[in-house]
Amino acid sequence: MTNQPAISKPLRVGALLFTGFELLDIYGPLEMLGLLGDEVCITMIAEKAGEISSSAGPKGMAENTLSDAEPMDLLLIPGGIGTRALVDDPHFLKLLGVAALSAKIVATICTGSALIAKTGLLDHHNATSNKIALEWVITQGPDVHWVRKARWIKDGRFYTSSGISAGIDMTLGIVSHLFDRETALDVTRRAEYLWNENSAEDPFA
Amino acid sequence: MTNQPAISKPLRVGALLFTGFELLDIYGPLEMLGLLGDEVCITMIAEKAGEISSSAGPKGMAENTLSDAEPMDLLLIPGGIGTRALVDDPHFLKLLGVAALSAKIVATICTGSALIAKTGLLDHHNATSNKIALEWVITQGPDVHWVRKARWIKDGRFYTSSGISAGIDMTLGIVSHLFDRETALDVTRRAEYLWNENSAEDPFA
Repeated sequence: MTNQPAISKPLRVGALLFTGFELLDIYGPLEMLGLLGDEVCITMIAEKAGEISSSAGPKGMAENTLSDAEPMDLLLIPGGIGTRALVDDPHFLKLLGVAALSAKIVATICTGSALIAKTGLLDHHNATSNKIALEWVITQGPDVHWVRKARWIKDGRFYTSSGISAGIDMTLGIVSHLFDRETALDVTRRAEYLWNENSAEDPFA
Repeated sequence: MTNQPAISKPLRVGALLFTGFELLDIYGPLEMLGLLGDEVCITMIAEKAGEISSSAGPKGMAENTLSDAEPMDLLLIPGGIGTRALVDDPHFLKLLGVAALSAKIVATICTGSALIAKTGLLDHHNATSNKIALEWVITQGPDVHWVRKARWIKDGRFYTSSGISAGIDMTLGIVSHLFDRETALDVTRRAEYLWNENSAEDPFA
């Protein structure tokens, strides 16, 4: 995996849902990617297809399963209270690991980093996570190089972001990397979003 | 309607979905409200219950209908490309108008203001909207006092926000108004969100 992975056109984005996912973790990044229009193709995936309840209640819809999904350019893994059970679910972690192995880029938001850490794929990589839940996340991947102060971290094909809203900033960083900075800035203007563009700037550390 | 409406405990939030809704318009505000836990009860509503496609593709789920929904404390109305058809849909606008009339607070995000403007309920109120789409929105409510520079506007029981991301800032303003500022700030810390707290500060005007 190089720093400039060869991506498909359109970019194939797989967005993971699970019971107890955090709404903004997944829909914030998808908003920014969705503003790229025909440049991206978004598929919502879960262990089982169908309605999936978020931590706040509102349900998302998964149209594909982790086991049936084609290899993705970008796999988005949200956090949320549901991660607390999933880190102890070997069947889910195996499916997630296979999907993550075949994805060109894996990006986690908030405590989603605990899930990918638990697969072992993050071992010996720099990574970050939600700052309030960080001590718990660290226990899920003791061989990960956890960074306590970062809005998001890129290490090879792994992006990990800080809590909830930080996923939006990270996603704009991914857009800047895969397309270019002007494309990312255009998205911020259309979303009327003030981008925390410096990944090292972390007001919540 | 006073400046401090008597709200229910928990706060009954109705969040509108329609085909072509903008993901962050609705899920950004719902993230912030969801972090209040048992203080809020969120219901997703639409003209018809069931799966509803967003403008970017991912589907939300509406469990109740506009016509069956109980009166709400807070009715959230998103924008998105779907508003372009709905401003010419008298049946939808009638249902929306009835729901908005009975809601203690009506809050629109982005071009959601065009929908409530078209019901006539915003006439002679100060309001704002998405800055790129503003000229179109103005044509949907010629008797509304449109404000070209504002992150969000509160006028009586109507809150209207600027484009997409501005809905999050507005929602925190609503939380500050209905609960208190410290509660809103606590939500921002848990969401790791940098709140544009000054409603008059609009970097996208």
